Amino acid sequence: MSTVEIIRKKRDGKTLETNEIRELIQGYTSGRIPDYQMSAWAMAVFYQGMTEKETADLTMAMVESGDQVDLSAIQGIKVDKHSTGGVGDTTTLVLAPLVAAAGVPVAKLSGRGLGHTGGTIDKLESIRGFSTELATSEFVELVNRNKVAVMGQTANLTPADKKLYALRDVTATVDSIPLIASSIMSKKIAAGADAIVLDVKTGEGAFMKDEADAVRLAQAMVAIGKHVGRKTIAVVSDMSQPLGYAVGNAVEVKEAIDTLKGNGPADLTELCLVLGTQMLVLSGEYPDSKAARQTLEELIRSGKALAKLKEFIVGQHGDPVQIDQPETLPQPGKIIPLEAEQDGIVQTIHAEEVGLCAMKLGAGRATKEDQIDHAVGILLHKKVGDSVQKGEPLASLYVNRTEALEEVKQRMRQAIPIGTTPVSAPKLIRSIVTEDGVIPL
Amino acid sequence: MSTVEIIRKKRDGKTLETNEIRELIQGYTSGRIPDYQMSAWAMAVFYQGMTEKETADLTMAMVESGDQVDLSAIQGIKVDKHSTGGVGDTTTLVLAPLVAAAGVPVAKLSGRGLGHTGGTIDKLESIRGFSTELATSEFVELVNRNKVAVMGQTANLTPADKKLYALRDVTATVDSIPLIASSIMSKKIAAGADAIVLDVKTGEGAFMKDEADAVRLAQAMVAIGKHVGRKTIAVVSDMSQPLGYAVGNAVEVKEAIDTLKGNGPADLTELCLVLGTQMLVLSGEYPDSKAARQTLEELIRSGKALAKLKEFIVGQHGDPVQIDQPETLPQPGKIIPLEAEQDGIVQTIHAEEVGLCAMKLGAGRATKEDQIDHAVGILLHKKVGDSVQKGEPLASLYVNRTEALEEVKQRMRQAIPIGTTPVSAPKLIRSIVTEDGVIPL
Repeated sequence: MSTVEIIRKKRDGKTLETNEIRELIQGYTSGRIPDYQMSAWAMAVFYQGMTEKETADLTMAMVESGDQVDLSAIQGIKVDKHSTGGVGDTTTLVLAPLVAAAGVPVAKLSGRGLGHTGGTIDKLESIRGFSTELATSEFVELVNRNKVAVMGQTANLTPADKKLYALRDVTATVDSIPLIASSIMSKKIAAGADAIVLDVKTGEGAFMKDEADAVRLAQAMVAIGKHVGRKTIAVVSDMSQPLGYAVGNAVEVKEAIDTLKGNGPADLTELCLVLGTQMLVLSGEYPDSKAARQTLEELIRSGKALAKLKEFIVGQHGDPVQIDQPETLPQPGKIIPLEAEQDGIVQTIHAEEVGLCAMKLGAGRATKEDQIDHAVGILLHKKVGDSVQKGEPLASLYVNRTEALEEVKQRMRQAIPIGTTPVSAPKLIRSIVTEDGVIPL
Repeated sequence: MSTVEIIRKKRDGKTLETNEIRELIQGYTSGRIPDYQMSAWAMAVFYQGMTEKETADLTMAMVESGDQVDLSAIQGIKVDKHSTGGVGDTTTLVLAPLVAAAGVPVAKLSGRGLGHTGGTIDKLESIRGFSTELATSEFVELVNRNKVAVMGQTANLTPADKKLYALRDVTATVDSIPLIASSIMSKKIAAGADAIVLDVKTGEGAFMKDEADAVRLAQAMVAIGKHVGRKTIAVVSDMSQPLGYAVGNAVEVKEAIDTLKGNGPADLTELCLVLGTQMLVLSGEYPDSKAARQTLEELIRSGKALAKLKEFIVGQHGDPVQIDQPETLPQPGKIIPLEAEQDGIVQTIHAEEVGLCAMKLGAGRATKEDQIDHAVGILLHKKVGDSVQKGEPLASLYVNRTEALEEVKQRMRQAIPIGTTPVSAPKLIRSIVTEDGVIPL
């Protein structure tokens, strides 16, 4: 079937066969099928959607478009976690050592990418000496020994997805649930995951602003997992305000350390326990959620989770002293308090705006070439619904360069409106989506 | 507004502003906007449609993308005719002299193009010496003197439409009524038409197979004309079987001569009278349809229409002897009768298949480089509903090369099934669409 016929078939709402989707993705990856046909197809998918099977076929075609990481030398079921992105999302830094401490292997490939703050690798590089430049053999050995390692992504994973995503970005075809779902799942599967726990964010600071869309995306990804034999569970969680208090790199490492000690923010701690519980359940090593959760709580209480973090850091040449003395992590030139201008209640915290302010201070990258400043960022002192008094700090700005400071101060103040109306904190965990359906929480 | 925002706006069913459509078309013509954004936009238009105003804006943006022919030196209202294409459509060859004989200027730009047979220029070039390579000044002088001339299209008319059409062809975005309507209308307006009569074909041999779609296309074009100040009327006519009997080049010239003499096929004659009547009415020179039609009938009866054809041919260096002696037009090496294999009634004549057979014999071009053989083609002897006897010729094949002959014979026989069920001839004129609505006939 010619490419134009494949486009027409999808345009007219018919279902594409496995070989048609494979042809499309192979042709696009090799350059035989031009961008203009692929974008027309993507727009047709925007309107017509894809069946579960088509979405699974697209996922596997993208997995097969590049290298696939072979983790078979690692003992146990490799459960990967993916978050759909938000502001101040420190979960990976907490979950990797926490789940490893429970005996479940965490073999994580991670990237740098663009965003409000650095990616997981950038955050970890706040720690002196820490390196993710590992040979695969070293990576496998580390996971088998410590149950946890993070490797920088060097292999040519899912090139079809990279190419298609860049095209969707400039053709208004990003907002398609089957295309988003297959993009995320293809990367996890190519990275070698046996099972996947998804943290699907919803709310103003998330990609999926609307909760119903977040649930639909979660369902689409769980369905892909089912079709391709990777057990998948999704947790839909709130991102209407930043998660935890820290937004940056070193500040988020510090927050992760606190959380592993049992002194972290309530929301970050709870989300990590929920996600970690699902990871332990999917590993097959724990009889049920209750046992899994009790184990994780005990690992924090006993200090074993924190010890695992140190083991993980040492394994990758990082300085464990900085875990015991987080004040030795990169510090900014100035810490500037942002004071409340009136008494009242925090009405909302515009998560996206806080993220953009952190980026403005140098905590993230707008383009690939940007350098990250590990020391800078934002530490919030309040959450939605908290009372504040005039003059009390709402947040601290961790600053090295001062050129955008006044703008950031003003935007941050507008991002945290104070009012007199009582507001309750948004519900953190909205639902859990499994093969059996949606469980509202 | 960025291109991706314009695409998103259309994608979400919103209405584009005049300047947004202009930006899109200017950017695409200049190469600043790439094919992959334009094809995504075209697919969004496929689903969301366009308002009458958007369609008119698109038309004028395409008109302004290239040269515009200035016919102001020609006296009178220039009424152009356009047919949406079919098989054996000889109307232009008849209408140009017929309408000119009625005193209405016919200043026609024409092309060669691809198709079952040649374009109007190719057909006219069957006549010895006839040339359409005219300077604009010569063209204007001819129309002012004889009321009729045909010039080969050399100017850079509607380059945006050419580029967009080629893209739509390979991205499954051809079948969009606002895109088809604006493509046709932009070419007519850029060619200098003051008013336009459209011959919208429907049925198996037409681009619009479905009559309801043909009416919608007619309405969309009439609405464009209204918005941009070009009076436009559309006639929806049958193309379920070929029009007239001749499919080719010289054979169609011969058929046009017969029609101008009053001896043409009933359907071709009637369609030319209906279209010609509308052209005369739009010229403003005739009080009503009845007077216009009587004039045209009288011009045929009196021989003045045929005399005008000769004047037209002579004006462009053609040999008028061939009009008086059509047997001197290019003749094929062989004329092969296709005999009926049984008694019965012609159930249907698959127009598209007859067209493809004529092309196979060399009457048309599949690619720009193909040479046309003016002498070859197909002359049908029957129409749908006619009785035939076994051995009676259904058609004559005008043949020079014999390599595809057996295939053509077999396909032609299948294209004209004979049966015992009585069949009535399909209705020729289906409706007339004006600014005031659809008039069923």
